[in-house]
Amino acid sequence: MHDLVIIGGGPGGLTAGIYAKRALLDTVLLEKLGIGGQIVMSDLIENYPGFKEISGPELMKQFEEQAKSFGLEVRFAEVTKITDKGGHKEIETSEGTLEARAVVITSGSRAKRLGVPGESDFIGRGVSFCATCDGLFFKNREVAVIGGGDTALKEGLFLSKIVKKVHLVHRRDELRGEKINQERARKDPKFEFHLNKVVEEVKGDFMGVSSIMLKDTKTGERSELPVEGVFVFIGWDPNTDFIDVEKDAQGFIKTNMAMATSMPGVFAAGDCRHTPLRQVATAVGDGAVAAFEAEHYIETHRG
Amino acid sequence: MHDLVIIGGGPGGLTAGIYAKRALLDTVLLEKLGIGGQIVMSDLIENYPGFKEISGPELMKQFEEQAKSFGLEVRFAEVTKITDKGGHKEIETSEGTLEARAVVITSGSRAKRLGVPGESDFIGRGVSFCATCDGLFFKNREVAVIGGGDTALKEGLFLSKIVKKVHLVHRRDELRGEKINQERARKDPKFEFHLNKVVEEVKGDFMGVSSIMLKDTKTGERSELPVEGVFVFIGWDPNTDFIDVEKDAQGFIKTNMAMATSMPGVFAAGDCRHTPLRQVATAVGDGAVAAFEAEHYIETHRG
Repeated sequence: MHDLVIIGGGPGGLTAGIYAKRALLDTVLLEKLGIGGQIVMSDLIENYPGFKEISGPELMKQFEEQAKSFGLEVRFAEVTKITDKGGHKEIETSEGTLEARAVVITSGSRAKRLGVPGESDFIGRGVSFCATCDGLFFKNREVAVIGGGDTALKEGLFLSKIVKKVHLVHRRDELRGEKINQERARKDPKFEFHLNKVVEEVKGDFMGVSSIMLKDTKTGERSELPVEGVFVFIGWDPNTDFIDVEKDAQGFIKTNMAMATSMPGVFAAGDCRHTPLRQVATAVGDGAVAAFEAEHYIETHRG
Repeated sequence: MHDLVIIGGGPGGLTAGIYAKRALLDTVLLEKLGIGGQIVMSDLIENYPGFKEISGPELMKQFEEQAKSFGLEVRFAEVTKITDKGGHKEIETSEGTLEARAVVITSGSRAKRLGVPGESDFIGRGVSFCATCDGLFFKNREVAVIGGGDTALKEGLFLSKIVKKVHLVHRRDELRGEKINQERARKDPKFEFHLNKVVEEVKGDFMGVSSIMLKDTKTGERSELPVEGVFVFIGWDPNTDFIDVEKDAQGFIKTNMAMATSMPGVFAAGDCRHTPLRQVATAVGDGAVAAFEAEHYIETHRG
């Protein structure tokens, strides 16, 4: 029986690991693929306080070394199910079953992708899933925002203050999202709407993205739209299938301010959580609170 | 009229500044004393992810430089009052009045001090106000925990796993705090209770703390207790007098998950907020969310 199992080795999980080990909890961190999470796809991070400029892989290496310096044990395994056994939790994984007094879930989420040629090739070189992270790299340039929901509108409005033009590409002829944001986007002179259009390809060269190929969903007509940035906001896939707790409509885990989920002794932190903002900075704050609260839970319920 | 005024130049305020400036908000940060906040009193921080070991002043210098690299304007002034003028807020300060569309409060809090000789001299060399921050420095040593409330008990129980002995010193003959924590402390063989005792002095030398002088509140008898650490948990003074919003019994500002206070357009982040944990890591997470939400508020309410 472990004190704590942390699920996921991104910024939130490694922070929870640092705090848990400093609280001398017997802790195992389980990671499915590789340490670092989504942020290792970032070439340049400028908004994690303490580092003016650092790459995702470099920053995560420092998190990992710090967590391991306190003795954090990392195992590679995919979690398939968590069962509440009352006094403890049973964690089923691809490498066998573990038992723990408490669990911190930091399993992250993935932005949904368009799944078109060129998209993956240009991630970090023009294709982005986060305006707060990457907007400033496109100052005075033309960008496309893909999607017609609230996130697409809000991120597009955020970008419009920075970039020269926001081309909003949406597959339907009507936008979704809060009316106030729709109105603001329509009034914004930097917005240009491309409705009933889907992206068929992201094009570019060694310098980065240069254009996207669009297809009209009604006429079938094809056109090329020159842009240097493509911001994709067509939804999220949180990695939360393995746990049966209260979630929002998109599958993000609901917590209270103490990061507690609806299952006693199970806490959630970072991108997998229902939260207004998903950043390294916020994952770190969440992870610290989750570990602190897990420690309190464990000590309160220890026989 | 500014877009945003940030009140307080600690980790939360500087993070809010980084995020606000990256969102191209016209932002002013007001600081009363010196940039960095309470954490500049820490000689050694080991639990801010990304830095295995760094001093408080060094870390805050990096935060400050990063915020200034995005153009954050810092002014030295003490805020005395914030008034909601509907469309904007009026911020009265020792250096005149400012107007802003939104406000982020990161004014911090101070742990209450005993106010006895030696206490201030040994801060960072034996005297601490945070077990999560400093507990590990006292592995297998004897420490005193001052206070009889819930914080004193919880932090004492946290310490008991790390240290050799926890001497709990309380001025009354009964503890306060949750019964379960009282019970756990009483059952814990590492706890020794010194009730009806007040601390009169913290003693030590160039190596740090060596003992505390106690006085019995009933008999007046004096005694010396040899300890290497003194953890003081007798309450907090949040710096929140200047703002009339919903607060908890101790004066910490209540917010929702989006860091919004009860005054529209006013957000709070970090130590001044009602929150389970007060760390650089949590202030950073809060600060990012507060600035992100302030940006959204400003854009939604801009004429």
